[in-house]
Amino acid sequence: MARFFMAGTNINGGMAIMKGRDAEHVRVLRLRPGEDMIICDGQGTDYKCRLVKADKEQVEAEVVEVVKCPAEPSVKVAVICGLPKGSDKTDYIIQKSVEAGADEIMFFQSARCVAKPQNMERKMERWQRISEEAAKQSGRGIIPQVSWLEDMTAALDVVVKKDLGIFLYETGEREALSDVLDNNREVKSIALMTGPEGGFEEFEAKLAKIAGMHICSMGERILRCETAPIVALTASMYATGNLA
Amino acid sequence: MARFFMAGTNINGGMAIMKGRDAEHVRVLRLRPGEDMIICDGQGTDYKCRLVKADKEQVEAEVVEVVKCPAEPSVKVAVICGLPKGSDKTDYIIQKSVEAGADEIMFFQSARCVAKPQNMERKMERWQRISEEAAKQSGRGIIPQVSWLEDMTAALDVVVKKDLGIFLYETGEREALSDVLDNNREVKSIALMTGPEGGFEEFEAKLAKIAGMHICSMGERILRCETAPIVALTASMYATGNLA
Repeated sequence: MARFFMAGTNINGGMAIMKGRDAEHVRVLRLRPGEDMIICDGQGTDYKCRLVKADKEQVEAEVVEVVKCPAEPSVKVAVICGLPKGSDKTDYIIQKSVEAGADEIMFFQSARCVAKPQNMERKMERWQRISEEAAKQSGRGIIPQVSWLEDMTAALDVVVKKDLGIFLYETGEREALSDVLDNNREVKSIALMTGPEGGFEEFEAKLAKIAGMHICSMGERILRCETAPIVALTASMYATGNLA
Repeated sequence: MARFFMAGTNINGGMAIMKGRDAEHVRVLRLRPGEDMIICDGQGTDYKCRLVKADKEQVEAEVVEVVKCPAEPSVKVAVICGLPKGSDKTDYIIQKSVEAGADEIMFFQSARCVAKPQNMERKMERWQRISEEAAKQSGRGIIPQVSWLEDMTAALDVVVKKDLGIFLYETGEREALSDVLDNNREVKSIALMTGPEGGFEEFEAKLAKIAGMHICSMGERILRCETAPIVALTASMYATGNLA
């Protein structure tokens, strides 16, 4: 069923009035009066609507039912990645994380980042568009926020506000990701931190540990920097009963 | 540590002799006598070697230790996908599946495939190269085979030889993927079947069911055809204790 986010939509007295880009989209899709569509408020609520009228100026639809968007996971996972080199990797991380159920996606400057954080404002606009596209396509109830954090300190500041912090690291003494997740199936929020191409420095792992994060392994296979977040996120969804 | 697959290597009397492309690679990496390297037989066994000599003709290395490659999962998962449109998607499925631990990857012509299976021989060569690259990079003990199956019948013929068959489907009556995996944690082999861009036809789901497959859901989020295999594969690795 056609699906829209609510920006530019007014819901009032059982009627939804769309203008602007979304109204244009309804016309492009050639939806006809009587057809059903979903307008999502971007906060996890879906308005099931029936199209009444679509003309050049605006679209009017009758609200038939208001439901909790079924695609929203019960756990809010923040994916926090050392900025990879090359926009194909960042774009990929965003698109796949949104599909796989992330609540928010953040990039930060970690010690081994090769990428230079330039034109961040323009980048963030593009990142947010990729998130919105992926959210629409996968039927999400929110548009996950994509943001940029200056450094590890800022990233850890996000982490400490979550119920569970997981730092994916490739060497040294680590817990198994699956053990940590199995022991924390009831958490409401998780922060997953993954490195850029060269991984993390030892001092970053130490900092993460001091901040209360679990230093975790995902097995002996070495995952690319753009693969690790999706694998860790999927494991988190699985463990918390959100892959069913 | 530098890692090679054994094609073109002879191991005999405690010495490994490399010629051809791999010997070239050792020279490119500027490994010096005394340095350690791993030569993998591509069947799950790693030969830890110490370089003795590298010249234009060949590379000689002393075998120091023979171990089971730690990166190989205990479960053999076949990823079987309806051929997507566009080589970026197939390439992506191959690369990420190898990283995430697939044993083999297969594409087949399903009812809603838009892609035309043309030049399959050349394609399979390229697919296999992508698998080899990803296997080296992620430290795998095998180079997962990538193959092409003509149709659903051929695909189901592969499935029935596995301990557990899982058919990912977007509508109708389905089991939760996590329930099925949780109830089958001890299996030694799994077949995961995912559709092309438009998903599967109902008759394909029926056929899969008749072949003994579990018709499964991965939740309410709609995953792209190139994302679903990685998510299902990661869930399989998690459930069988191979993400630790």
